[in-house]
Amino acid sequence: MLFSRILEDVRLIRQWDPACNSTLEALLCYPGLQAVWFHVTSHWLYRRRLFFLARLVSQFARFLTGVDIHPGAAIGRAVIIDHGIGVVIGETAEVEDHVVLFHEVTLGSTGPHRGKRHPTIRRNVFIGAGAKILGPIEIGEGSKVGSGAVIIESVPPNTTIVAPLGAVIRRRSHEG
Amino acid sequence: MLFSRILEDVRLIRQWDPACNSTLEALLCYPGLQAVWFHVTSHWLYRRRLFFLARLVSQFARFLTGVDIHPGAAIGRAVIIDHGIGVVIGETAEVEDHVVLFHEVTLGSTGPHRGKRHPTIRRNVFIGAGAKILGPIEIGEGSKVGSGAVIIESVPPNTTIVAPLGAVIRRRSHEG
Amino acid sequence: MLFSRILEDVRLIRQWDPACNSTLEALLCYPGLQAVWFHVTSHWLYRRRLFFLARLVSQFARFLTGVDIHPGAAIGRAVIIDHGIGVVIGETAEVEDHVVLFHEVTLGSTGPHRGKRHPTIRRNVFIGAGAKILGPIEIGEGSKVGSGAVIIESVPPNTTIVAPLGAVIRRRSHEG
Repeated sequence: MLFSRILEDVRLIRQWDPACNSTLEALLCYPGLQAVWFHVTSHWLYRRRLFFLARLVSQFARFLTGVDIHPGAAIGRAVIIDHGIGVVIGETAEVEDHVVLFHEVTLGSTGPHRGKRHPTIRRNVFIGAGAKILGPIEIGEGSKVGSGAVIIESVPPNTTIVAPLGAVIRRRSHEG
Repeated sequence: MLFSRILEDVRLIRQWDPACNSTLEALLCYPGLQAVWFHVTSHWLYRRRLFFLARLVSQFARFLTGVDIHPGAAIGRAVIIDHGIGVVIGETAEVEDHVVLFHEVTLGSTGPHRGKRHPTIRRNVFIGAGAKILGPIEIGEGSKVGSGAVIIESVPPNTTIVAPLGAVIRRRSHEG
Repeated sequence: MLFSRILEDVRLIRQWDPACNSTLEALLCYPGLQAVWFHVTSHWLYRRRLFFLARLVSQFARFLTGVDIHPGAAIGRAVIIDHGIGVVIGETAEVEDHVVLFHEVTLGSTGPHRGKRHPTIRRNVFIGAGAKILGPIEIGEGSKVGSGAVIIESVPPNTTIVAPLGAVIRRRSHEG
């Protein structure tokens, strides 16, 4: 199952990323995909209640890839994590199929209580670099979250949500 | 001293994190704690003016954990760095006891001058993922800084400060 | 050429960073500089169309340094990447001479089309930690981008642009 998933993901990234030039490159140079593949193993261990082994696998994956996915998280098929460094996905997060996450995205909690405390990301969602999605909220199917956006309430399907942009505070006509 | 500190931190994380299932997990699977433990060593070297050795230790810790704490920074007891990847703490930063920092928090400077140029974080402060706290400012005791907030002025005690949230710019009733 | 560049960068960081105490420290403890040095090699391979080798070098550099520079990116002289972790620079990005980038800066794209899709950063630009600069836009010579700013349109020369700051939402006069 892991093997067929790797093949599927490699095929997907070759279609999706204009910077990807070969199958070998897709296999070896996408740490975000590698993190998902490690997660298949850590989640398998987690569901068999081998919590410590599961966490060891996920921590090893974090060391290799810079992507920190808790073994308890539920990750669908064809989930692309691009660049990946700094991505953090919490224990009770759910990510459905065909989701794209960029580096430094957090699917986090707003407090250390037990139970569902991390977001659910529905199908076909796109989340830009550095976005922070916090709490047991839902990002609806087909929605897009812009880079750097902080989100603490559910987002309906097919919605685009963006961070406030940087603003000019000074312009010098001559260098001082 | 380092050994008693590790015991103390392991006990703390077991209470604090609902996702933590065993002492072994607390010991091996919290890179943010490991970074603090390395920092105890690098800071010890730094205070003896063994600057280069100190930096080597902190760079090795950064490689292992993704947490970049300058050896000169003063870090209190019971400081939890959760997830940890991308945390950057500058040379003249001070973090008091019982502070929680999440991944990608920066305690940085606003310019490369000498002297105190990084923040002071008072007791019982909570700083969410990705917050950037810049300059020789102070975050008052018991305050909370939300995920992604950019802060360049001091914050009084017991104050909650948050980043502006993402805003909806488009909603499609039917997928195009 | 790589050797002279390393010497030049080491001299530069010693002048620029008040926390840097020796040449050995500059050589071994600045992963952002090391990433640029690896990039000199990966870009050389990329320009000879050895795409896979080029990517292997850049992925190895990412593993060691936490800095992810696509081999295709054009990086000038005296470019300082400080702290470096989480920096992502895309394939068609251009960074001119004497630019300073802090950790978690993204020079990214807004979509997976071919052709120029990443930013151009002109000379003497400063970009603060966590800023996200997206699309085939230009940051004009001498401009400063504040920490955490999200930028999707070109910025004229000598302009300062900042993220909206965190805002106080609650202040307690007595701890509850």
